[in-house]
Amino acid sequence: MTMESAFIDSLRQIVTEPMARGLLDDVAVMGDLVLTHDMIVEGVHFLAGDPAEDVAWKLLAVNLSDLAAKGAVPVAALLGAGLGGDKDWTAGFVQGLGLACEHFAVPLIGGDTVRMPTSAPKTFGLTLIGKASGPVPFRSGARPGDGVYVAGTIGDAGLGLRLLQEGRTVPEALVAAYRRPLPLLETGRMLSGAVTAMMDVSDGLLIDASRLAAASGVAIMIDLDTVPMSADARALAGADRAALLAAATAGDDYALLFTSTLPLPPGPSRITRIGKVTRGEGILLTDRDGDVPLPDRLGWEHDLPA
Amino acid sequence: MTMESAFIDSLRQIVTEPMARGLLDDVAVMGDLVLTHDMIVEGVHFLAGDPAEDVAWKLLAVNLSDLAAKGAVPVAALLGAGLGGDKDWTAGFVQGLGLACEHFAVPLIGGDTVRMPTSAPKTFGLTLIGKASGPVPFRSGARPGDGVYVAGTIGDAGLGLRLLQEGRTVPEALVAAYRRPLPLLETGRMLSGAVTAMMDVSDGLLIDASRLAAASGVAIMIDLDTVPMSADARALAGADRAALLAAATAGDDYALLFTSTLPLPPGPSRITRIGKVTRGEGILLTDRDGDVPLPDRLGWEHDLPA
Repeated sequence: MTMESAFIDSLRQIVTEPMARGLLDDVAVMGDLVLTHDMIVEGVHFLAGDPAEDVAWKLLAVNLSDLAAKGAVPVAALLGAGLGGDKDWTAGFVQGLGLACEHFAVPLIGGDTVRMPTSAPKTFGLTLIGKASGPVPFRSGARPGDGVYVAGTIGDAGLGLRLLQEGRTVPEALVAAYRRPLPLLETGRMLSGAVTAMMDVSDGLLIDASRLAAASGVAIMIDLDTVPMSADARALAGADRAALLAAATAGDDYALLFTSTLPLPPGPSRITRIGKVTRGEGILLTDRDGDVPLPDRLGWEHDLPA
Repeated sequence: MTMESAFIDSLRQIVTEPMARGLLDDVAVMGDLVLTHDMIVEGVHFLAGDPAEDVAWKLLAVNLSDLAAKGAVPVAALLGAGLGGDKDWTAGFVQGLGLACEHFAVPLIGGDTVRMPTSAPKTFGLTLIGKASGPVPFRSGARPGDGVYVAGTIGDAGLGLRLLQEGRTVPEALVAAYRRPLPLLETGRMLSGAVTAMMDVSDGLLIDASRLAAASGVAIMIDLDTVPMSADARALAGADRAALLAAATAGDDYALLFTSTLPLPPGPSRITRIGKVTRGEGILLTDRDGDVPLPDRLGWEHDLPA
């Protein structure tokens, strides 16, 4: 168990309020409001050299993705900013945040600002308040017999980041997937009435699917060959077992993972059936060659070596 | 201008939504909801050696104090936790947070957890959602002719901290004022309909009064001799000009500073008239001996040397 999940388990001892949904969801639900808070930390979620404008965009986007998975419409944001001493970086951050707030029509309405101690990583938190557009799907609602689906594509951001780090020329779409992810807000709203469970894929398809399975008390079978990689990603990385496993464990996708028994409404995003829910626990992977052993690392756990 | 206030000024360029109140208040107001977010960072707002239980208490208390100043009733909290690797500390933090949530009847309903990079300071953010109990006072409503008041006492926490750091025996009340502040929620609710402006005193009476004056476009005259020090603090530090200036610039009071023209309702906290609002700008200090030059440092600006 990572330190992060041990902490969340210990928090569950002090959290009894139904609005918290047992801390099993990425959001809390207060009447018709859907609330989420995500942090991003330099050296953990972004690199010191990442453009400040993109860090601000991503801070808003990762929170919007949590609302997308609940079919909620963003209403307002509060920012907690732990800044470093670099004025140009800070100016770029404000510019990027303004751009992102305008793009997604989310007003910034308050927050707090702190100068971090010298050499401490920049640390940001964003609280996003959304309004439910209908039922607010749980992460725990998957039932045996449901189909398992992904809206959007998997692996673009991870591949983009890897190629950037290797100093290679990267297709614009893959760079954008990493730096300026587009949360699937409209898709989430259209799906929210038709799913049994839904969450966003932020840490990797396999780890997030295993979390959905655990929250629902079921097993999830995934046909690896059906994992929706983009045409750009397939062209660069291929679609063999290794490439598909890399995509399914990379994270930063901000796709939606959901389960359903219903015919799905048409929407703006590509929707792909990737497997089914069965009795049991954990995830089971297959491909055209049969069972696929689970990789040691299912995704990103935000837990650094001590 | 500190880096922090320069950043907030630049944020104002991208903040136009009335809910934000121009970022002049410590809260945003969304319908009948009052929202606040405060961060606390190891090495800035608390020391590595401070008991984890008290850090958690203070995290909730500083946010509750923002709601108190708006007459709001706390409804729920979201936690952003940037943890270090010390399991005992983390367990103590959860215990302290549970205790504080129970004491103030505020359920924790969600948030995010991150393991900070090695040797980075622990960093926490808390978003508190409250419900307005009536009008939500602005910081900008003070008008010439209003009286200036403090609810609670000033200087206890600062004196407690200083004596602790000097290794001296400290009266329990002064230690508690520093470690386990009690936000004046009931007092704030009773006052909120009778004030022209209100804010909590968190960074020091003088700096917070200068902020209220600036937000309102007025000057505030303060009679230093009337600044309400507790009996414990007077007994230890005296009440001469130096002691009163130390109290009025120490911060961590979580008292309420407000302006009013009305008779004040009786309430559970000591209420003291400390001055009046006039035309002009800034703050003007007097005492029994005449004008008091403003100290270089009016309070705590959360801005560390680069």
